[in-house]
Amino acid sequence: MNRKPRILVIGGLAAGPSAASKAKRINKNADVILIERTKYISYGICEIPYYLTGEYKDKNNLVVYSPDRLQKEKNVTVRTETEVESIDRKNKSLLIKDHKNGIHRKEEYDKLIITTGSIPRSLPFMERSMGNVFTIKELSRAYELHDYIKQHKPSNAVIIGGGYIGMEMAEALKHLNIDVTLIHRRSYPLSKIDENSGKLLLSVLQENGVHFVPDSNVKSFGTDTNDNVKTVVTDNGVFDTALVIVAIGVTPNVAVARDAGIETGHLGGIKTDEKQHTNDDDIFAAGDCCEVRNLITRRPSYIPLATVASKMAWTAGENAAGGSAVFKGAIRNIALRVFNYEVSRVGLTISEAEEAGFKIVAETIEAPSRIIGMPEAARVTVTYVADKNSGRLIGATLIGKDGAVHRGNVLAAMIQMGATVKDVSNLDMMYAPPFSPLWDPVLVAANQTLKKL
Amino acid sequence: MNRKPRILVIGGLAAGPSAASKAKRINKNADVILIERTKYISYGICEIPYYLTGEYKDKNNLVVYSPDRLQKEKNVTVRTETEVESIDRKNKSLLIKDHKNGIHRKEEYDKLIITTGSIPRSLPFMERSMGNVFTIKELSRAYELHDYIKQHKPSNAVIIGGGYIGMEMAEALKHLNIDVTLIHRRSYPLSKIDENSGKLLLSVLQENGVHFVPDSNVKSFGTDTNDNVKTVVTDNGVFDTALVIVAIGVTPNVAVARDAGIETGHLGGIKTDEKQHTNDDDIFAAGDCCEVRNLITRRPSYIPLATVASKMAWTAGENAAGGSAVFKGAIRNIALRVFNYEVSRVGLTISEAEEAGFKIVAETIEAPSRIIGMPEAARVTVTYVADKNSGRLIGATLIGKDGAVHRGNVLAAMIQMGATVKDVSNLDMMYAPPFSPLWDPVLVAANQTLKKL
Repeated sequence: MNRKPRILVIGGLAAGPSAASKAKRINKNADVILIERTKYISYGICEIPYYLTGEYKDKNNLVVYSPDRLQKEKNVTVRTETEVESIDRKNKSLLIKDHKNGIHRKEEYDKLIITTGSIPRSLPFMERSMGNVFTIKELSRAYELHDYIKQHKPSNAVIIGGGYIGMEMAEALKHLNIDVTLIHRRSYPLSKIDENSGKLLLSVLQENGVHFVPDSNVKSFGTDTNDNVKTVVTDNGVFDTALVIVAIGVTPNVAVARDAGIETGHLGGIKTDEKQHTNDDDIFAAGDCCEVRNLITRRPSYIPLATVASKMAWTAGENAAGGSAVFKGAIRNIALRVFNYEVSRVGLTISEAEEAGFKIVAETIEAPSRIIGMPEAARVTVTYVADKNSGRLIGATLIGKDGAVHRGNVLAAMIQMGATVKDVSNLDMMYAPPFSPLWDPVLVAANQTLKKL
Repeated sequence: MNRKPRILVIGGLAAGPSAASKAKRINKNADVILIERTKYISYGICEIPYYLTGEYKDKNNLVVYSPDRLQKEKNVTVRTETEVESIDRKNKSLLIKDHKNGIHRKEEYDKLIITTGSIPRSLPFMERSMGNVFTIKELSRAYELHDYIKQHKPSNAVIIGGGYIGMEMAEALKHLNIDVTLIHRRSYPLSKIDENSGKLLLSVLQENGVHFVPDSNVKSFGTDTNDNVKTVVTDNGVFDTALVIVAIGVTPNVAVARDAGIETGHLGGIKTDEKQHTNDDDIFAAGDCCEVRNLITRRPSYIPLATVASKMAWTAGENAAGGSAVFKGAIRNIALRVFNYEVSRVGLTISEAEEAGFKIVAETIEAPSRIIGMPEAARVTVTYVADKNSGRLIGATLIGKDGAVHRGNVLAAMIQMGATVKDVSNLDMMYAPPFSPLWDPVLVAANQTLKKL
């Protein structure tokens, strides 16, 4: 090759900077160029609720790498406010628009990594811009939300969507003394959660003063003359509001990829192999724009989480630079704080397992987080989902205080290793009064589930 | 059979009540009789340091089951202050001394479970009773220590032995404003710890004002006329003291079993199969009097921990009652709090792995416990020990705040499932700002260790 290999990366949120940095680390001789549509790169969505409450101290910490820093520390060329309009696979080049000057131009690649992420789902009547309606996805919009709350001091808010971002935002807004109504299309918060866990989560929200409106679909917004939403109209009543947060999930952002003939799956994400190869040998993809192999069902799934995206990104980056890394897939491990409770949702829930065709056994137990007598001892509720045929643990939901979420990681490890419930009951877990009871809730749940298997 | 089967259990501390309760649950028709030498049954040693400081609120909570309660709730007959003097295997009976009335008698069994526990190691010059010298093993002696401190208000104490009980006691006594000198025969606290972890632990002790005396052996005590120890004489200096705690480990209590020809191993504990059978078909053993199979080395090891004892006890209890439960072994998972630090020691340390013949790779990293920016973010130091040949993770030590010990459980799970370091690096761990960083310290350590493998 007469010139340096050029590795282009489209999309700079989370997976992009990781993939670009990894590619450069693997092949120092390559030109690695990161192209991002907005002003910002390398930031976290997950921190936004904590930034709003002030718990997350420094606004600047939301950005892991500024374009300058990524350039300096990782030797990656960063082009912000630059949008990829199309991919010309035949000529291995991108058609690009530079928003700073309006100029269109071509950019050639030897290897391309698509990390275009996801797009927040919206409601049909959200098409025109509404000043007090926010999604939690883009950093600039998060800054605007922060400023909006400071300036307008809304006394109430409607959150549409009771998934994990909806619940985290409910907590954040309550901390800011805003009255919160949470509208959800299912009976319980968190999508596809089992009934026991759902009821418990619901009671946590209610204890903390959140008005949860179940089984409801939003039909329209009532706006004032400034196009600010004043009422949210649902099939279960009309709710006044000064602020609307829409958190009804995301879909893979694949328009540019699909237009170029990059194959997508039935869940809408880009299909890749375990090297993060797309159907084009020179094009890799990583992050929320991709489907990912579910290690439990062995089928494609859509898991738009930073933890999974970052592993895909390292794999894509390494392989685009000539390596041969492998990403086998994920199990879905979601953790969140809901007021003073920890919530962990690992692997498949009951309904997900049934949809996937498993014949399941499920059990819910409640057990102390530490030995009774230690002042911090709290209750942890654990629900296990097991495959009746193999005896394998395939899902767990934990709700409680004092280590529920870290215990979820233990179960994630066991599920990922293909452990049976019997294996879980045999786990050699630690015991020390400042941390746990003699029989950890994880073991208690296993012993109880075993009785049904 | 004309009469009910009789299952006798010798020893009532932790394993005994568990085994007895389990046996009765499995065979409701059996007479299950628990025989205990002292006044107390079913209590925890691990809670004693926290009882001394007052953190563990209720003295009564130290006892899980009183004899009455075990009798009422579990239908187990309990005989306290009753000592087994010998086992007559031929006639399947025990020679027993009732300390309440001095009477000797026989007690027949169909199945016998030996749960005689362990004996604290002592120093040769501790033979006569010394009022201010304590081991942390028997409940009555813990009560006496509690009262001694209340009454005599010692201004200083010498703790002999820097293992986990020694360190927990150092913390407890410092909380009570007692000046603590900790004498240890090795260079760093915690037995066989690697040097990085040892140095860190040492600095934690020193930061908290504990005088750590390394590489020292106690040679004698200087006593006053009331046989109270006033000085502890070592090969590294003489230390004044008003109170002495001896915490130099335990040995299996097997005298009665060995006298009856029950086979013991080279580590001194009773040998059992995975059904907790001894070499006598009608005699089972469980708990600290037993050796246990180490799941990593596949060799016998001695792991006197309540977590392991309780699993052995259930197995022995079930099988003595006609079941066929299996206990495969343990990996050794120790957790402790040392002042404001969490310490987790899972599987093999470097020196243990080398002794066991592994060719090892070890790595130590330091990583944040949560994403930088969250106020509770702390540092966690993680040391991995891997088997160079197989790539398997065989040991981990974690020292830090904010979840170090629960992270140790994740690694315990992986080690027990035979995971490689690569498997650990692939773990689908949760990310949420209130709990973790995007790359958990467990993953960071795996990625760094992989580079050496």
